[in-house]
Amino acid sequence: MTDKTLDVVAIGNAIVDVLAHADEAFLTDHGMVKGSMQLVDEDTAHQIYVDMGPAIEASGGSAGNTAAGLASLGARVGFIGRVRNDQLGEVYGHDIRSVGVDFRAPTAASGPATARCLILLTSDAERTLNTFLGAASLLSPDDVDEAFVASAEIVYCEGYLWDLPDAKAALIKGMDAALAAGGKVAFTLSDSFCVDRHRAEFLQLAENRIDILFANESEICSLYEVDTFDEAADRVAGHCEIACLTRSEKGSVIITSAGERVVVPAHPIGSLVDTTGAGDLYAAGFLFGLTHGASLERCARLGSLAAGEVISHVGARPEVDLAALVAAELPA
Amino acid sequence: MTDKTLDVVAIGNAIVDVLAHADEAFLTDHGMVKGSMQLVDEDTAHQIYVDMGPAIEASGGSAGNTAAGLASLGARVGFIGRVRNDQLGEVYGHDIRSVGVDFRAPTAASGPATARCLILLTSDAERTLNTFLGAASLLSPDDVDEAFVASAEIVYCEGYLWDLPDAKAALIKGMDAALAAGGKVAFTLSDSFCVDRHRAEFLQLAENRIDILFANESEICSLYEVDTFDEAADRVAGHCEIACLTRSEKGSVIITSAGERVVVPAHPIGSLVDTTGAGDLYAAGFLFGLTHGASLERCARLGSLAAGEVISHVGARPEVDLAALVAAELPA
Repeated sequence: MTDKTLDVVAIGNAIVDVLAHADEAFLTDHGMVKGSMQLVDEDTAHQIYVDMGPAIEASGGSAGNTAAGLASLGARVGFIGRVRNDQLGEVYGHDIRSVGVDFRAPTAASGPATARCLILLTSDAERTLNTFLGAASLLSPDDVDEAFVASAEIVYCEGYLWDLPDAKAALIKGMDAALAAGGKVAFTLSDSFCVDRHRAEFLQLAENRIDILFANESEICSLYEVDTFDEAADRVAGHCEIACLTRSEKGSVIITSAGERVVVPAHPIGSLVDTTGAGDLYAAGFLFGLTHGASLERCARLGSLAAGEVISHVGARPEVDLAALVAAELPA
Repeated sequence: MTDKTLDVVAIGNAIVDVLAHADEAFLTDHGMVKGSMQLVDEDTAHQIYVDMGPAIEASGGSAGNTAAGLASLGARVGFIGRVRNDQLGEVYGHDIRSVGVDFRAPTAASGPATARCLILLTSDAERTLNTFLGAASLLSPDDVDEAFVASAEIVYCEGYLWDLPDAKAALIKGMDAALAAGGKVAFTLSDSFCVDRHRAEFLQLAENRIDILFANESEICSLYEVDTFDEAADRVAGHCEIACLTRSEKGSVIITSAGERVVVPAHPIGSLVDTTGAGDLYAAGFLFGLTHGASLERCARLGSLAAGEVISHVGARPEVDLAALVAAELPA
């Protein structure tokens, strides 16, 4: 795959995160399930915002976080996602371009505002997501330039997009373009409730179209409707070329269709502050390794290192240069 | 002053901070003076933004930070400042209201955008400010409700406003309203370059109108055009009822017209991350103490505690409930 000019093209919801601390009662009072993502309409988003405490704004979105992490590691990355031409859209575009990501997709001149995710951080560092998709919900196959996707070794797809028919069609177009050009398809299950909504189709994807699957423990258990991680791990073994299963403080397990199983511990961190972006940055580290000839074990260690950095501060994007962090903590 | 319904009304620029890490070369290449604030026009702000790295957005503005800090400490606070009806204006209004500040001033439906301050954080935790005033520059005497100001024990004024004739007139109206109602005037010199621009008038203010003056070492030295802190301290002694002089890691010195001199060390912090808001939060702690019957020494210790919290993380507003922090670290 040496003719590829990009390592990864990611496709996802372009979202600005609005992060605030909250107590457990706030989640209960607002009917939120801790640790999950729920889609909300503009009125609900407004009401949650009025009720929540002071916040900071930071670019987010699952696949966008992964793209930013990859760029920080030194990868060549593209990102496809939709924003509006409003202030938050400008923020989103600035943040992802400023780390070197080739950000593609027309900026809408009308219609709904740039997507926001209202994130409540509880004292256990868990994050609970309330997403108003806005402009991101208008992502369509027309936004996916097949030549752009074909120029990458891997197309990275966000499961969250499956909630919207047009965005789902955009993802399928992206996957097809990658596979037709000899590239690979990476996919994240995103959220256990998202898996619940689309289990049958996600199972088909895992069996037929996904080369590299990312899932945390609750997502992979939800996919196979099993109670234990070991059962889920056994089930996924036969499906994807590589399954990357993340287990929070227990580290991660890589399972391949060739029968390998690699277990890697979590990277030690100073203090756990905010888990937002942990899975996204794990994927960034792993895919950086994979596109740069690393062993599966090193790929997983790179994932753990990148995830460890992002959970040590508020916000879902790296605060430090990840390439420098790798040089310091995981020299090749 | 028991008939007062508010402790403090603050008047200042309503600004959303845009914070990014940068190296020293970035400052040099862009002609910035490290640690200072420069006003920039919209084009310059745009160019700096294009050049700077990924950022986070967080409500800021000197007096606004002080108001938010006071509210977090449990004070009854109002704030007068101007935003536009854009997304950043909504962010600003949300953040300051959500901590309980009574935010007053019409939201402009047209004209320049809500003010932004592009903040470059260098590895020494110093911050360099580039402010596009936008909607904040339209603050005028009409925005100052005299009855609102008169309802507070103290009106807190930001020296930065002196750069704009209408905003300066608004400050003067606020000071007059406070004094006429038996209140006191607190004032921050804001920035040594700001002092340079307005030295003669700031000296007159210090002598005739300011009861409580806040300044850091370089600002107070600039005001009196002297080389050493001790000379400046001697000069200010005869002017204001109370002068609060902050000296970064050396703590602060309180000097009164009655001849008192109180020296208080800096509050120990975990790690120094970002000095943005240090002076603003010192003022918040001090004024909280002053309006709640504390001794000058305790006022200064409250200032140091609040400043210590805000410099231990990125952003100029408290991340924790300051009242709880006081209860834990500085019980009365």
